[in-house]
Amino acid sequence: MKHSPPDPSLLSLNTATVREKWNLEQMIEGCARRGIRGISPWRDKLEALGAKEAAARFRGAGLTVTGLCRGGMFPAADRKGRAAAIADNLRAIDDAATIEARCLVLVVGGLPPGSKDLAGAREMVRDGIGEVLDHARSAGVALAIEPLHPMYAADRACVNTLAQALDLCDELDRGASGALGVAVDVYHVWWDPALERQIERAGEKRILAFHICDWLVPTTDLLLDRGMMGDGVIDLPLIRSWVEAAGYRGFHEVEIMSARNWWRKDPDEVLATCKERHQRFC
Amino acid sequence: MKHSPPDPSLLSLNTATVREKWNLEQMIEGCARRGIRGISPWRDKLEALGAKEAAARFRGAGLTVTGLCRGGMFPAADRKGRAAAIADNLRAIDDAATIEARCLVLVVGGLPPGSKDLAGAREMVRDGIGEVLDHARSAGVALAIEPLHPMYAADRACVNTLAQALDLCDELDRGASGALGVAVDVYHVWWDPALERQIERAGEKRILAFHICDWLVPTTDLLLDRGMMGDGVIDLPLIRSWVEAAGYRGFHEVEIMSARNWWRKDPDEVLATCKERHQRFC
Repeated sequence: MKHSPPDPSLLSLNTATVREKWNLEQMIEGCARRGIRGISPWRDKLEALGAKEAAARFRGAGLTVTGLCRGGMFPAADRKGRAAAIADNLRAIDDAATIEARCLVLVVGGLPPGSKDLAGAREMVRDGIGEVLDHARSAGVALAIEPLHPMYAADRACVNTLAQALDLCDELDRGASGALGVAVDVYHVWWDPALERQIERAGEKRILAFHICDWLVPTTDLLLDRGMMGDGVIDLPLIRSWVEAAGYRGFHEVEIMSARNWWRKDPDEVLATCKERHQRFC
Repeated sequence: MKHSPPDPSLLSLNTATVREKWNLEQMIEGCARRGIRGISPWRDKLEALGAKEAAARFRGAGLTVTGLCRGGMFPAADRKGRAAAIADNLRAIDDAATIEARCLVLVVGGLPPGSKDLAGAREMVRDGIGEVLDHARSAGVALAIEPLHPMYAADRACVNTLAQALDLCDELDRGASGALGVAVDVYHVWWDPALERQIERAGEKRILAFHICDWLVPTTDLLLDRGMMGDGVIDLPLIRSWVEAAGYRGFHEVEIMSARNWWRKDPDEVLATCKERHQRFC
């Protein structure tokens, strides 16, 4: 099936894509220069500038903040560790409110050190989200559970399918109030035989973010070898058609962690490539 | 929960574990020396010795052949490629019959070169298995679909969950005749939130093989960095308890592809470690 190119104004820059060479000010300037209208900062970049100062600059540049990366990392070996995770998530929610982010992305965390109790880690994730959800509601910040690729189940996120993330949403926010949803990142979910059905199940109330990049063949590193759109095997227009059919009208956020390729290039050229590939391959 | 150690006589050696330093004769001798009662050869090792000769030696050593690795690889860019894949699977079935393997393991294949059509590849897999199933029935060889970890969806197997494999079984062998089932490899499925339920669904009629190893943290290579049982994060006794609860009474086949560690060691020591770890960690 032939799909029309996406609306170019829906492109958003996740700061992980150019994190090695630019600070947040440079990214904001880069987006302005390239006509990119959305941005999604990681917290290291946000903290370097300060959330209030960043908020002012985002507004000044007319940028929509499509997300803040990231909260989560709930499982911990002991009560103290879990409390520290909660405190950190509350701070992240406040920062997300300050910069008026469309959502706080939750990378929920994997197994605590030394643990093999995957079911237990998943319970800690559910309890952790449950503990911070009221604060998020009060702050007007939507929480977006990001299911991560199963290859990260041990060390980054034990929520690994969209179905599992949506089950959590249903359990914690039965009425689909808008306070809790999912971030659909093609890199993590493209392989899932249930993807189309689960995107439909999510619907526009639950889809809070849509992240794009590509899966390279071969992939040489589990974490830092993501591909630019068009360089891999993901049928991006097809997945976009599914999120649009579900009612999603938000941004398409480019998040590429690429130590061997894109991180080494001139970030301004990377932004130009993102724009061009967004039109050609998404 | 505390589980009892497994029956040591259920340990089986998948030849991938020691493939770098030993030929099949040496593996058979090694199993005899270490009291290992099962073996599962890959086809490269089998062809080097010849299937008939290998069959005689397996019998002579009192070895149960717990599987033949592997058939599959059905998707191809054109009709000729798909026909070649079918022909190769028919040969694999004959070899599996010759060595009286409990099953022929199917690593079903990923996307054809240049393709992004994952649904199409999955159809080719279904059609391919459908085409060889009658021959397998006649030969008395059970076909075991092995769902592979989602990180292999592009290049090795586009069947990536046990649920998906069982859906294929139900479609192609509705009556659960014994001709078609699954190979449950902990490395590929340990992360799956639906694992316990799907193992129960599979039941003893569909579970044709059970493969063990471990998931290392960190994992440094997508293909060749599997861990020895006990060195990673998989709760092996728990998963074994699920397959046993489903009625499975077969072997526990150790399959470890480990270029940086176990492939470099003396294979006889590797076998000793497998035996010890099987008792301590499985």
